[in-house]
Amino acid sequence: MKHRILIKQVEWEGQPADILIEETLIKQIAPAIPVAADTEIDGRGKAVIPGLINTHTHAAMTLLRGIGDDMPLMPWLKEKIWPNEALLTDEDVYWGAKLACLEMIKSGTTAFLDMYYKLPATAEAVKEMGLRAVLSCACFDRFDSATAERSKREVGMLFARLDACHPRIRFALGPHAVYTVSGALLQWIDAFSKEHDVTVQMHLSETEEEVGYAVKRFGFTPVRYLHRLGVLSPRLSIAHALYVDDEEIAILADHGVQVVHNPASNMKLASGVAFRFVEMRKAGITVGIGTDGCSSSNNLDMIEAMKLASLLGKAWRKDPEALAAPQMLEAATEQGAGILQLKTGRIAENYPADLSLIDLHIPAFTPNHNFVSNLVYAANGSCVDTVICNGKILMQNKKVPQEEEILKQVRERARKFV
Amino acid sequence: MKHRILIKQVEWEGQPADILIEETLIKQIAPAIPVAADTEIDGRGKAVIPGLINTHTHAAMTLLRGIGDDMPLMPWLKEKIWPNEALLTDEDVYWGAKLACLEMIKSGTTAFLDMYYKLPATAEAVKEMGLRAVLSCACFDRFDSATAERSKREVGMLFARLDACHPRIRFALGPHAVYTVSGALLQWIDAFSKEHDVTVQMHLSETEEEVGYAVKRFGFTPVRYLHRLGVLSPRLSIAHALYVDDEEIAILADHGVQVVHNPASNMKLASGVAFRFVEMRKAGITVGIGTDGCSSSNNLDMIEAMKLASLLGKAWRKDPEALAAPQMLEAATEQGAGILQLKTGRIAENYPADLSLIDLHIPAFTPNHNFVSNLVYAANGSCVDTVICNGKILMQNKKVPQEEEILKQVRERARKFV
Repeated sequence: MKHRILIKQVEWEGQPADILIEETLIKQIAPAIPVAADTEIDGRGKAVIPGLINTHTHAAMTLLRGIGDDMPLMPWLKEKIWPNEALLTDEDVYWGAKLACLEMIKSGTTAFLDMYYKLPATAEAVKEMGLRAVLSCACFDRFDSATAERSKREVGMLFARLDACHPRIRFALGPHAVYTVSGALLQWIDAFSKEHDVTVQMHLSETEEEVGYAVKRFGFTPVRYLHRLGVLSPRLSIAHALYVDDEEIAILADHGVQVVHNPASNMKLASGVAFRFVEMRKAGITVGIGTDGCSSSNNLDMIEAMKLASLLGKAWRKDPEALAAPQMLEAATEQGAGILQLKTGRIAENYPADLSLIDLHIPAFTPNHNFVSNLVYAANGSCVDTVICNGKILMQNKKVPQEEEILKQVRERARKFV
Repeated sequence: MKHRILIKQVEWEGQPADILIEETLIKQIAPAIPVAADTEIDGRGKAVIPGLINTHTHAAMTLLRGIGDDMPLMPWLKEKIWPNEALLTDEDVYWGAKLACLEMIKSGTTAFLDMYYKLPATAEAVKEMGLRAVLSCACFDRFDSATAERSKREVGMLFARLDACHPRIRFALGPHAVYTVSGALLQWIDAFSKEHDVTVQMHLSETEEEVGYAVKRFGFTPVRYLHRLGVLSPRLSIAHALYVDDEEIAILADHGVQVVHNPASNMKLASGVAFRFVEMRKAGITVGIGTDGCSSSNNLDMIEAMKLASLLGKAWRKDPEALAAPQMLEAATEQGAGILQLKTGRIAENYPADLSLIDLHIPAFTPNHNFVSNLVYAANGSCVDTVICNGKILMQNKKVPQEEEILKQVRERARKFV
């Protein structure tokens, strides 16, 4: 007998509907589904949305939340981030990632693309917490060939260990940036990703300094440099992409490269404002939204990230019609699914049961003239009542199992950071 | 016997403290206060902050939340806002303002400066809900002398009716903008405010169009035009002030004019990004933060507004050190109190008991290396657990009396808007 969850009379596209989940899939959506289920959820006063997809984060950096805010980039890295990261144990990363998963579940995210060290610890946290994740292994060689060889060996070992470790987890590659990874290593990573069909994510064109560095050292802007190296492909997504011109947008589109916009991080670190969402989408590029890690800005709330993306886009473009709410929701769901190469991001029959129920009995949805507008512009992550991922209930009535224990563990472990 | 509330072992400035409230005032703050109280509140796992002060909003516009988002300004006003506002009854405004009060309480705001029509209905809502408010009567004459006379009569009547109507409410004047209010009426308003010691708030230098209009019609930018009219004074606060140059900042400072920054509204309506917080504070100008009304962007969450103000400021200034978290909290508390001319905005003995308790047992405050940073950058309004205003408990355990009834009333009343 297959395991069934029946969500009764939930608001879906403006109408009440029953949604039947069988094992891991959405089996049926209809005005009324008269079947018996193992679990029934009362959907009245709630609306269903696809699980949100956070396409760029560093999960375990929850541990460093609030350390070194309001500082310039280099002193922040040198005095705050690097010394504290050097103290991180596997167990710290495991608990930091558990907290990240908890925070994401509580704000309606069911899948994320991570980039960090000590991936097995993050993988363990993800397995237990029930989300989906694509875990990219942060790669650096700092233009040193011995370091590059170590990095390649690590990639090989982690791929063997993590790629088939769990149906909800995939291994990926995370070359850090053009100023920390040599062209040779980038080419090796591209070849590896092609051979094993592995996703790659890289920080690119995040700051003016980075662009200036690339032009000076390599003779090209970052996108053109990667193009010259021959490492642009549909397996690659780039995080930030704040400084790209029309030709670079065309190059990215031609090669099927995907882009992740991180509005909170870009604003808080003062990296830049001119993310060219409209032009990229027009060129056919898949554009997702990410929160970045909690050290950049400072939560993992994708509902807040949608609002920031829209407001920032409207503001610098001087166009109140740009980056409308439905486009933001699409970026945070279907577009994100494209970047993670998941068949999720939609509420539809035979799609995986990755979804959230939104509590409509709160001021943000009162009145509810326009649900998507209220979600993006009025609400925040706290509107999420119930989260289901891969057919399993991860949160109900805003409560996640283990919540107190995770908070306690992180509070205690974080004492050593300064 | 005086009514006493004792908050036990709440985190205050990083240490646990007892806070004794006697009638409407904070009587004592000490490591331990061994007195009997009518009500004891367990402050463990919570931190205390001053009640937040929303220095610019249009409370009853909660009724129009989500109507006409992602539209350009003039079609939005003509097709959505004005036709729907024409349908508003006193009872609608009363319930819309109740919802606004509910939403503000739930996100930690205890005082606000409103600008709208049908003030007595808003006043009634504020009386019942327990916040403080300065209610400014929206004044227009559209350069028509008969309309100006009607506006003056209305001001006189409302002043008589509202100014001494309740200890938590004050009447104020709200000349709408330089393009809707004649110079003669602005001068009359200034004289009235001087005679009766009444606060004035006005939208000013909000858009490039407004500045262009003022230069063309009056020969001066908006600030210089008001200066020429002789209506700049410490009784005046201006909302927005996005387009002010160095000389205008000096003029505002010289006349003690106060400024309200509304980052969400400015971004969503694409009014502009370059709010000169740093220069204004340096010049000695009191700068508060406002949410604007829910038709502009779309909630009344002052914690979100602090984050937006900081992130927007850092981004356009290209300076991650600017608009740091403690400055944002000061703007949303002490500076705001200055604009509302209230002796609130601080947790201190003999100050009015206007405060919130923040729930620290949530991901946003885990870890809690830096409470103010977590509050501004990681949290949102949902972190508020308990709200006290004027010595009365308005919310405890995130529950406000009448919540369901208010949501229901507004849902029903809002059906007529389209």
